[in-house]
Amino acid sequence: MKKRPIIHFLLALALTGTAIPPVVAANLQSDHATAATRQKVVIQVSDNDPKKWALALNNAQNVQEDIGKGNVDIEIVAYGPGLPILKLDSPVGNRVEDAIASGIKVVACENTMRKTNLTKDDMLPKLDYVKSGVPEIMHKQQQGYAYIRP
Amino acid sequence: MKKRPIIHFLLALALTGTAIPPVVAANLQSDHATAATRQKVVIQVSDNDPKKWALALNNAQNVQEDIGKGNVDIEIVAYGPGLPILKLDSPVGNRVEDAIASGIKVVACENTMRKTNLTKDDMLPKLDYVKSGVPEIMHKQQQGYAYIRP
Amino acid sequence: MKKRPIIHFLLALALTGTAIPPVVAANLQSDHATAATRQKVVIQVSDNDPKKWALALNNAQNVQEDIGKGNVDIEIVAYGPGLPILKLDSPVGNRVEDAIASGIKVVACENTMRKTNLTKDDMLPKLDYVKSGVPEIMHKQQQGYAYIRP
Repeated sequence: MKKRPIIHFLLALALTGTAIPPVVAANLQSDHATAATRQKVVIQVSDNDPKKWALALNNAQNVQEDIGKGNVDIEIVAYGPGLPILKLDSPVGNRVEDAIASGIKVVACENTMRKTNLTKDDMLPKLDYVKSGVPEIMHKQQQGYAYIRP
Repeated sequence: MKKRPIIHFLLALALTGTAIPPVVAANLQSDHATAATRQKVVIQVSDNDPKKWALALNNAQNVQEDIGKGNVDIEIVAYGPGLPILKLDSPVGNRVEDAIASGIKVVACENTMRKTNLTKDDMLPKLDYVKSGVPEIMHKQQQGYAYIRP
Repeated sequence: MKKRPIIHFLLALALTGTAIPPVVAANLQSDHATAATRQKVVIQVSDNDPKKWALALNNAQNVQEDIGKGNVDIEIVAYGPGLPILKLDSPVGNRVEDAIASGIKVVACENTMRKTNLTKDDMLPKLDYVKSGVPEIMHKQQQGYAYIRP
């Protein structure tokens, strides 16, 4: 999808009979390389099961170690029965904070919070919030994120 | 993928030296907008767990509320141990019927039905049927549907 | 993604004013057909639950039967709590071996093996191995594989 504008630009060039300047060709090449190496993954947490929470955090950490922190965007989305992973009293709270500190985006579903009478005061610090968890996960997939459901 | 024919058409125009008529350019623009706003999601139900069934139905409902009924195609596919969500005696039968009434496509796996000696007479009304659940989910992903496994 | 080089080639032809030879056009057509029919799916096994293992193997088998062995690439990736599906003492070991014999690629996560003190001698024969399971699943999704999490 991201390449569309470039294709349209090239088509415009083709239609007007303009040659591609060398600098554009070079940029196309490097854009290609960046797109190929940059990776993205959204990890869903929707079970009320601390073992699954630990697994999700392990998965995120392994991805960072394997691909390299700087080469991958990781987002963990907790919703429904999985939301308590992000509460102040979460048994894996320290690990969630470590994940955020290492650059992983951790997102809570406000819809679940409202239904379970939770406010941001009940939650771990430095979380991100979305109106609803599932549409966020859909949106990420549409943006090219791989989906992992531990 | 959907844009391929347009790209081929544009290439054909380019190859023959034809300019793009303004009306075609305008249509390209509006197609683009439609593709960007229309969303699609396939929700898998493969656990024999009424709590998971309720969660799947909640997820579908939240997506409709969040994105707007008219802006999203939602398909729930039940197979294997999850098929009983769609039986006449399903504890969430009323909610499945409500989901179908609100425009959500709900699909039963005939392969699972055959293996568990169920016929359409054993199932809720107004379901859709596919030969096999997993290939259906694969097909939807290939068509650009996001995948949610509650 | 696979079509990019062809598009670039066509653009190059367009830019240089060269017509597409009929043989190239014919190949494009047949490539298109192949890309449309060839299907790919990665199946994740991450639960320590023999029922889930059987379900994953059933899913793979159904996909082969439904789509046709020769028309689909299937890869099962086991990691974390799901890795024991691939141990020598796996209760579904025979079925895993049958799956491999029928052309399904079955992959073990070496990261999980190291953490659980397993070597290849503890594992079923003819497995494939990857450094880490989740990045493998991400990579497959990026390559256009559908994702199934039974």
